[in-house]
Amino acid sequence: MRDVYIIGVGSTKYGELWDMSLRELASEAGLKALMDAGIKAEEIDALYGANTSAGQFIDQEHIAALISDYSGISELGIPAVRIEAGAASGGAALNQAYLAVKSGQYDTVVVGGVEKMTDVPSEVANEIIGGSLDAEWETFFGVTEASVAAMIAKRHEYDERVKREHYAVFPVISHKHASMNPSSHFKNVIKLEDVINASPVAEPLTVYDTAPLSDGASAIVITADKKKIKESENPIRIKASTMANDFLSLHDRKKIDSFKAVNKSVKEALKQSGLNLGNIDGYEIHDSYSIGSLIQMEEIFGKEAIKMVENNEYYFNSSHPLNVSGGLKAHGNPLGAVGLYQAIEATIQLRGKAGERQIKGSKNMLIHNMGGLGTTSVTTILGVE
Amino acid sequence: MRDVYIIGVGSTKYGELWDMSLRELASEAGLKALMDAGIKAEEIDALYGANTSAGQFIDQEHIAALISDYSGISELGIPAVRIEAGAASGGAALNQAYLAVKSGQYDTVVVGGVEKMTDVPSEVANEIIGGSLDAEWETFFGVTEASVAAMIAKRHEYDERVKREHYAVFPVISHKHASMNPSSHFKNVIKLEDVINASPVAEPLTVYDTAPLSDGASAIVITADKKKIKESENPIRIKASTMANDFLSLHDRKKIDSFKAVNKSVKEALKQSGLNLGNIDGYEIHDSYSIGSLIQMEEIFGKEAIKMVENNEYYFNSSHPLNVSGGLKAHGNPLGAVGLYQAIEATIQLRGKAGERQIKGSKNMLIHNMGGLGTTSVTTILGVE
Repeated sequence: MRDVYIIGVGSTKYGELWDMSLRELASEAGLKALMDAGIKAEEIDALYGANTSAGQFIDQEHIAALISDYSGISELGIPAVRIEAGAASGGAALNQAYLAVKSGQYDTVVVGGVEKMTDVPSEVANEIIGGSLDAEWETFFGVTEASVAAMIAKRHEYDERVKREHYAVFPVISHKHASMNPSSHFKNVIKLEDVINASPVAEPLTVYDTAPLSDGASAIVITADKKKIKESENPIRIKASTMANDFLSLHDRKKIDSFKAVNKSVKEALKQSGLNLGNIDGYEIHDSYSIGSLIQMEEIFGKEAIKMVENNEYYFNSSHPLNVSGGLKAHGNPLGAVGLYQAIEATIQLRGKAGERQIKGSKNMLIHNMGGLGTTSVTTILGVE
Repeated sequence: MRDVYIIGVGSTKYGELWDMSLRELASEAGLKALMDAGIKAEEIDALYGANTSAGQFIDQEHIAALISDYSGISELGIPAVRIEAGAASGGAALNQAYLAVKSGQYDTVVVGGVEKMTDVPSEVANEIIGGSLDAEWETFFGVTEASVAAMIAKRHEYDERVKREHYAVFPVISHKHASMNPSSHFKNVIKLEDVINASPVAEPLTVYDTAPLSDGASAIVITADKKKIKESENPIRIKASTMANDFLSLHDRKKIDSFKAVNKSVKEALKQSGLNLGNIDGYEIHDSYSIGSLIQMEEIFGKEAIKMVENNEYYFNSSHPLNVSGGLKAHGNPLGAVGLYQAIEATIQLRGKAGERQIKGSKNMLIHNMGGLGTTSVTTILGVE
């Protein structure tokens, strides 16, 4: 089976980008990725587009065709397809593109993710985000994603004797890292007490426990073309790409405060890559909610995850750097794009080009993109060789 | 590269199915496909779900996870991902699943498509369908897909000296075939003058030139597992699966009444399969609009396409059987599902199980699924060996 490499990455700034439309954001990210790869549109065999909810945000489906059209590459006739898996759409698109290249059908593919969330009022946006839960049995009755996360947090505190501080710390870490990333939505540093004392969203979660509504797009170029890989200044190999799934509805799960799909996809990815956790130099996980960050790390590290909180091990210059990008919480959360920005951050780290937030000597990065709360889990392991 | 076979197919009836929700439709089709394949859910490695616009129709995204949940297979943790490419979502999902199996990541995959369109008023449904055009530059200004098809028809009549009858005949053919298919939305036979004299939708097109709003779901099981293929009573091989793309917006195209992506994907599929048109025994094309049927056949056969209309060659018992299923026009048009029903019809034909609408001695079938009007083109060639 042939090896697949990332040879180009590109991203817009993340934030409230009211002067840019979805198609403009996506095209900017795609163009930057091509330029970074040093290739022309003619050298692409297919376009994979990730997007979660453009149908509801801007009344637009047929997303990949739209992006292909606006960026002009429709002239070439190359296939364009959209992948959707809630907020795991970006990771899922990378997974599909990776499999398509591995199959031999395509050599070089651009994978982009985009979301335009701030053109609607925030209460409408939150309803739309609820569309990634069970719309009929959860969202219809007024449940929001934040309220589901809050229920999970309360249960986790009760069942596992977890303290508020054990998960309130994750936004603090993400904001610290985002302050060192030029493309971040937020660059302010916050403290643990800021998180705990901020405006409540759904008790016990405050506004700082939750990722923002952001606009943004991110794209990467992957290839199995030996010439392109050789000519690339620093190709990054996709060592593993796996997906797993859990029940969408919380009421269908036996235990609401564990994410078994995360455990499954991470284990399979480690196996696929031939690596173990000791080989991983940094993690990008899906920190849409602080409690979700803790549970993801517990699914990966078990009880050690909380000890690692207590020992401050998740900072960029410590033993288990986490969300050095700034994460969804502070770098930004344009749903369909985030899984691809995770891959971009990992690529930048593995290239050694992350500036002041560089993880020293990083050889392998594990990224985890999630749809719903533990429903869709996509794990990717990237590495230099 | 390993061969991939269809070993199971299943479909709901198509129609206005007010007593069934999207999740119920999808689960019924998937279960039928598994039963037809004679395998258990435990033997599936992944679920691919096709859907065009559930975000707008029923406020639900994360579609594949929803179907996985409701059908109970989330218990197994297997990956679930949705593919979207306008009304070509079904064909695109089959393409992605096929590539994923070819890559070696999965052996056996279920691919389902579903759309629930009749829970909203038809004028709302038509706006939602417009979301597969350019929402910002076309739909926003009141353009509907039917009006785009009508512009294409007028232009084609003017440029190519095509007569009304040359495309009005396609719904007549589809209704004839649908009358012999138990799962059809419509079973009435119509005449050429019925099409021409029916209520106008967008001049020159009438209500009979356009496919209906339907609910429905269709699913297939594909595999590269040698044991499963051997045990299958009549496995059907996927001989080719290709995609191509054209500009989404009509105003970006040099010529509005040709579908160059169709030409490209069909040519590539023939090349991939090692077949030529002389080897193809039947065609399922995307007859959402009568004019679209003619242009698709012209992209495949050139000027011969019109002669074949004049010689009545498109009926099931003639030389170039077309839409023997009844097509989108009469078998039904639940957007995300139709590309998969096309594959089901081809499978039934190749198994020799199509009853009174059976194409005699059919060995190879070509199916073409389209998103927008010529924007996304997916060609699949299925055959017995």
